[in-house]
Amino acid sequence: MNVRFAGRMDKVKPSAIRELLRLGADPRIISFGGGYPDASLFPFEQLEEVFQTAISANGRDSLQYTVSNGLPRLRQQIAQRMERDGIACSQDNILILQGGQQGLDLVAKMLIDKGDVIATENPTFLGALIAFNPCEPRYAAVRMDDDGMDMDDLELVLARNPGAKLIYTVPDFQNPTGVTMALERRKRLIELANRFDLIVLEDSPYREIRYQGTPVPPIKSLDTEGRVIFLGSFSKILAPGLRLGWAIASEELTQQLGLLKLAADTQCSTLNMSAVSLYLDTYDIDVHIASICQTYRRKKDLMLETIRGSFPQEVSFTEPSGGLFTWLSFPRNFDTARFMAEHALPEAKVAYVPGATFFPLEQEVNHARFSYSTQTDETIVQGITSLGRLLTSSLRTAERRFEDRTST
Amino acid sequence: MNVRFAGRMDKVKPSAIRELLRLGADPRIISFGGGYPDASLFPFEQLEEVFQTAISANGRDSLQYTVSNGLPRLRQQIAQRMERDGIACSQDNILILQGGQQGLDLVAKMLIDKGDVIATENPTFLGALIAFNPCEPRYAAVRMDDDGMDMDDLELVLARNPGAKLIYTVPDFQNPTGVTMALERRKRLIELANRFDLIVLEDSPYREIRYQGTPVPPIKSLDTEGRVIFLGSFSKILAPGLRLGWAIASEELTQQLGLLKLAADTQCSTLNMSAVSLYLDTYDIDVHIASICQTYRRKKDLMLETIRGSFPQEVSFTEPSGGLFTWLSFPRNFDTARFMAEHALPEAKVAYVPGATFFPLEQEVNHARFSYSTQTDETIVQGITSLGRLLTSSLRTAERRFEDRTST
Repeated sequence: MNVRFAGRMDKVKPSAIRELLRLGADPRIISFGGGYPDASLFPFEQLEEVFQTAISANGRDSLQYTVSNGLPRLRQQIAQRMERDGIACSQDNILILQGGQQGLDLVAKMLIDKGDVIATENPTFLGALIAFNPCEPRYAAVRMDDDGMDMDDLELVLARNPGAKLIYTVPDFQNPTGVTMALERRKRLIELANRFDLIVLEDSPYREIRYQGTPVPPIKSLDTEGRVIFLGSFSKILAPGLRLGWAIASEELTQQLGLLKLAADTQCSTLNMSAVSLYLDTYDIDVHIASICQTYRRKKDLMLETIRGSFPQEVSFTEPSGGLFTWLSFPRNFDTARFMAEHALPEAKVAYVPGATFFPLEQEVNHARFSYSTQTDETIVQGITSLGRLLTSSLRTAERRFEDRTST
Repeated sequence: MNVRFAGRMDKVKPSAIRELLRLGADPRIISFGGGYPDASLFPFEQLEEVFQTAISANGRDSLQYTVSNGLPRLRQQIAQRMERDGIACSQDNILILQGGQQGLDLVAKMLIDKGDVIATENPTFLGALIAFNPCEPRYAAVRMDDDGMDMDDLELVLARNPGAKLIYTVPDFQNPTGVTMALERRKRLIELANRFDLIVLEDSPYREIRYQGTPVPPIKSLDTEGRVIFLGSFSKILAPGLRLGWAIASEELTQQLGLLKLAADTQCSTLNMSAVSLYLDTYDIDVHIASICQTYRRKKDLMLETIRGSFPQEVSFTEPSGGLFTWLSFPRNFDTARFMAEHALPEAKVAYVPGATFFPLEQEVNHARFSYSTQTDETIVQGITSLGRLLTSSLRTAERRFEDRTST
């Protein structure tokens, strides 16, 4: 049969990163690819206990349907935590999500008609492009540097796209660059959003994984007109297999997003919400977060130190203060995808994510995202060192070829 | 601020049933409204055990991300179960869903452009209309009787709507009517789908809750061209709070639905998938299903018997062989919503779902959906008896008024 797909399916294609995650699953490969948290850090015993209690003490409720916006007690607990982070909110501003990813889908559905413009960082989170694409937006890519999105460039982009509806940003330890948006820029972002009458989608799943420096206030905490939607997640601070995240928005927007949530999948798992709520009541999640941050900091330091010691000087990289990623930039014509397929994978048995797919418009081939979260100290050193050796010889050969060409 | 919503939000509105479920939550009300399973039937100890094992024996995997189509082992187990029900399939035809509801959302996204026609039973499942609406379809309503969708009427409807893309049906113990589609009609449905080149969405969350009579083969088992998508669910046979369902489709369609699933929420809860997979490996779910079917049959018999004994003769009702619902029809001008607000709730403290919202086009006011699943034997008798008393006096008054009018 010849299926007559909806028009939006032209924008729904398998992603390179997904294929790559499959390669990374080969146990002989040292993968710096997936943005997974370190599974050895999950609080196993505590989770076992709270799931047991949720079923044995309250199973009739925790295995049954509940309200589609999410368990009221959990929404209350999240609101209290977010208040401590500077965001004034109550449970009526919270929608529990099937991971932060669902927030991207619901916000796009709520706002984006075909052809509407979304302004994103350049590069930006690939999963957001995947979530937005079925709504068939146009993208406007905004320059960024070590302080995050460039506000002069954003202003230009917004002036050039008067119909733009949404600014999408990952302001804390961005995926893929690891960069954090400076406070002054956050303030200016709010001014621009107010002036151009836009919604800001602040996607911050790594926010609490800060292992050095001082937290920068959430953009949502600076929101003066209810136009920022904040997305948070339990995936990195607890465990992604629970599939729980949340949105914080004005009551009007929370209600609309809640209707879309109901339409999409009725509600999140009552059991998982009950268990996480019990976890938050029984244990101090901040103690847990502090301990996982120590590990991530050690791994980050180790990876950057090993890169410094073994990679050619032409390769630059970002220095994140939190999150799971560093972003490497190579000489202009160096194709990281080709290098991975031809050299890194077969010769060094190392995988990473080539950077091209993170660019919404013009793909730059000379970057790569490296995650230091899932490998051990030993495999970080081993993988980065082998890769450094390969890169050194490969970039020297390229240089020599260039010299040969210019001298003839 | 003035939010510029996407056009599709005009179709996304709060539903009457949702408001009603709130009323039904009042413990003083005997609610026959919600389509919830009986929470006392959940297999608490077994679920407690499998969750414990999933975390303690395999927590690094079961709390981590997994492939977005769902845990391979669980897909295999579902494929084996569905094969026994006559559907030839392998794990490559299975997509794990956040409850059956998510299948409705994903299938609509895959197929429906604004204005495309979906043919549905009349009445049909309200949750499906809610899921389809963001894609802005037009509906074509197909007559039904005690043998399900009327195939002569479907043929007429399809001939009148040459662009139609999808036939949506709940063939087993339909929500809201409790009616099951006869085998001959299922065969003719396939013929019509082949002739008019359409996709059939067979939504069958109640299929395994059959407590009398012989199962009718799934429409998917009669599919000759890979054009049927079957939706199943663990919500009624295990527990809805787990939020797990599945789609069965051709490999091509499974792949497309999988891409939409990835975009929408990455994946279902790895933990819940692992625990249910362990449950299926450790226990005989068919023994469990047989035991819950006994309870539902007893409750159904009790409700229908009490209706027969206490409701006025003008009220007719369907006699389901499974599932959770019976569908009541009242004299033409009797408004069940108004009666509920003015009499049933305040005077009898009884709730049900007025039928109007289940009609995609022309709403008929004189029906109601009654669920016998969540009330006890005692409250079924008590609620139906009080309601019967109210109805008897109310319909007599209406009759007298009518006689008064016609005699003057």
